Amino acid sequence: MKTRERILQTSLLLFNEEGESHVTTLEIANEMNISPGNLYYHFRGKEAIIPELFDRFEHELTSILKAPIENPLSLEDNWFFLYVVFEEIHEYRFIYRNLSDLLQRFEVLHRRFSRLLDLKRLTAKAICTSLMQKQIINIDEEEITQLADSITMTITFWMNFQQLRTSETPSHLLMHQGAFQVMSLLAPYFTEQHREFYDGCHAFYQEALKEVS
Amino acid sequence: MKTRERILQTSLLLFNEEGESHVTTLEIANEMNISPGNLYYHFRGKEAIIPELFDRFEHELTSILKAPIENPLSLEDNWFFLYVVFEEIHEYRFIYRNLSDLLQRFEVLHRRFSRLLDLKRLTAKAICTSLMQKQIINIDEEEITQLADSITMTITFWMNFQQLRTSETPSHLLMHQGAFQVMSLLAPYFTEQHREFYDGCHAFYQEALKEVS
Repeated sequence: MKTRERILQTSLLLFNEEGESHVTTLEIANEMNISPGNLYYHFRGKEAIIPELFDRFEHELTSILKAPIENPLSLEDNWFFLYVVFEEIHEYRFIYRNLSDLLQRFEVLHRRFSRLLDLKRLTAKAICTSLMQKQIINIDEEEITQLADSITMTITFWMNFQQLRTSETPSHLLMHQGAFQVMSLLAPYFTEQHREFYDGCHAFYQEALKEVS
Repeated sequence: MKTRERILQTSLLLFNEEGESHVTTLEIANEMNISPGNLYYHFRGKEAIIPELFDRFEHELTSILKAPIENPLSLEDNWFFLYVVFEEIHEYRFIYRNLSDLLQRFEVLHRRFSRLLDLKRLTAKAICTSLMQKQIINIDEEEITQLADSITMTITFWMNFQQLRTSETPSHLLMHQGAFQVMSLLAPYFTEQHREFYDGCHAFYQEALKEVS
């Protein structure tokens, strides 16, 4: 792997584990066993690494979020889709950890993060609308707006929320919890004949919980 | 007002407006027109001010959250109660702004914040259970757990979420939005004869939106 790529991957790892604000450029170089000079040859310090990691996150999450807008998913695939979204956010979780502070420091990322939030809402709306049209959920247009906001907020803050409660939750369990929490927002809208799909998600989630404890 | 109290109130104001990490002890003294020495006589810097502000927040929010556990509220009062909670969080919003970072720096506050989250969940559960018993909402015990989590997350992160989307929302509108967003989580569970209460909340919220635009 090229040095440039190794710097990015090492930074991502350290930022995620220790929190971006606690990691110095020197520490990244030390972790890689390269000189600070070599690191500076590729990036002018941590402040240049963060936007590049954000680029990647933005690119990946955008293509994930656009898929269900372009082609409606089956009910089951919506459920898997949630896992894919949570995995992506987990991979770049340092961004979400001190979001306000990070976005205050990088003004240009603020607008781009807002756009990602808007895209999350569009995707949530597209999914809800498709489920409504297939008569899987019984909901009106106006309620979809609030529901899409709640889904977007859960996708954005679930992992932070859960780690504030108990910091030792294994990451794959965080994703199970997050995906089920989103499903539970949809639950009261499921029509009778699709209720068993939700019960299946619930059973699947209970199994995941048991495996951990 | 005594100097000690003025230091606390000035710090709270600056932390809320600029973000705690961007405010220095010197800036607090300058803002008050007192010498840094005078400030240090009362508090050994910013690091001593933060826990004292947290004490106040914890004390106030705890007594707010305990009320509906001890005495179930009427349906209307639950709605006002949400405003009281959002107002309290808004008053100490610097705590929520970079929560992970703040709680990482003050290990002892982490446990206390987790306890506040647990109390929020207990309060949300008590309210849902009381509404269920009065047959205002139609829900089973198991669903209440997920719903209480969603309510707790909305109470905790709504203002952050909204400000990430559009930073210029006036604060009283943030509270209207937050309270209505929580009501919308309950909405699909309302029984037919209480549906009009929810419609009333919706109309009230629409009025608030109009006043702003």
